[in-house]
Amino acid sequence: MRHALAEAQKAFETDEIPIGAIVVFENRIIGRGYNQTERLRDVTAHAEMLALTAAANHLGNKYLADCTLYVTIEPCVMCAGASYWAQLKAVVFGAEEPKVGFRRHGQLLHPRTKLRGPVQHEECAALMRAFFNLKRK
Amino acid sequence: MRHALAEAQKAFETDEIPIGAIVVFENRIIGRGYNQTERLRDVTAHAEMLALTAAANHLGNKYLADCTLYVTIEPCVMCAGASYWAQLKAVVFGAEEPKVGFRRHGQLLHPRTKLRGPVQHEECAALMRAFFNLKRK
Repeated sequence: MRHALAEAQKAFETDEIPIGAIVVFENRIIGRGYNQTERLRDVTAHAEMLALTAAANHLGNKYLADCTLYVTIEPCVMCAGASYWAQLKAVVFGAEEPKVGFRRHGQLLHPRTKLRGPVQHEECAALMRAFFNLKRK
Repeated sequence: MRHALAEAQKAFETDEIPIGAIVVFENRIIGRGYNQTERLRDVTAHAEMLALTAAANHLGNKYLADCTLYVTIEPCVMCAGASYWAQLKAVVFGAEEPKVGFRRHGQLLHPRTKLRGPVQHEECAALMRAFFNLKRK
């Protein structure tokens, strides 16, 4: 999650909602991503989507069945849906996102995917709060 | 939907699950996409995602509030989630997809997005059947 937070920090520094993600395979990071929806003007450019695409590129396989996605904030419906298709081994998120997190819509992940979180709510949520406090000023 | 079907046909011809999508703004097509998950080895490369990204690129705006997405098959959870973020005016789909269509998970689209479909079930579903029949041989 430390590495996912480093990605989120990159988003923060480029004036993007600070969410970061990594994909881990055999204890190695094979995909990284941070939210870039503003810079790319593309709602699909969430941290998780970019990390999943990078990981699939790395493995040359669209299925990431032995991979774990770490993301600083609970994924949204779109990213949960992408995780479903990738058939991830596990999804680990840092902080809950009660408003647009996927969990309020029920079980959207693949049946084989284990879900763990919130594992680091305070630190991950603090970065989001800092971002939105700055924006309000 | 005729143009979305033409996109689906392109997918069929490149050995991809034949789903196609277009995005329409002021009666013009500003984004097109067909499923390319095999070629790109990327689960996120659904027809809708590619069409939404292309449309946002065209407009220079990640919000597609005055746009309608036409897609040959009922969108999955991921694509419904992307449509939510894009705040589309409308989503029109050709054929129902009871197994992995988003509707079984409830209301995942943005509250402002109108949903219409199935509008052309037979033709859109027939292309899918033809594809999977070929695959089984």
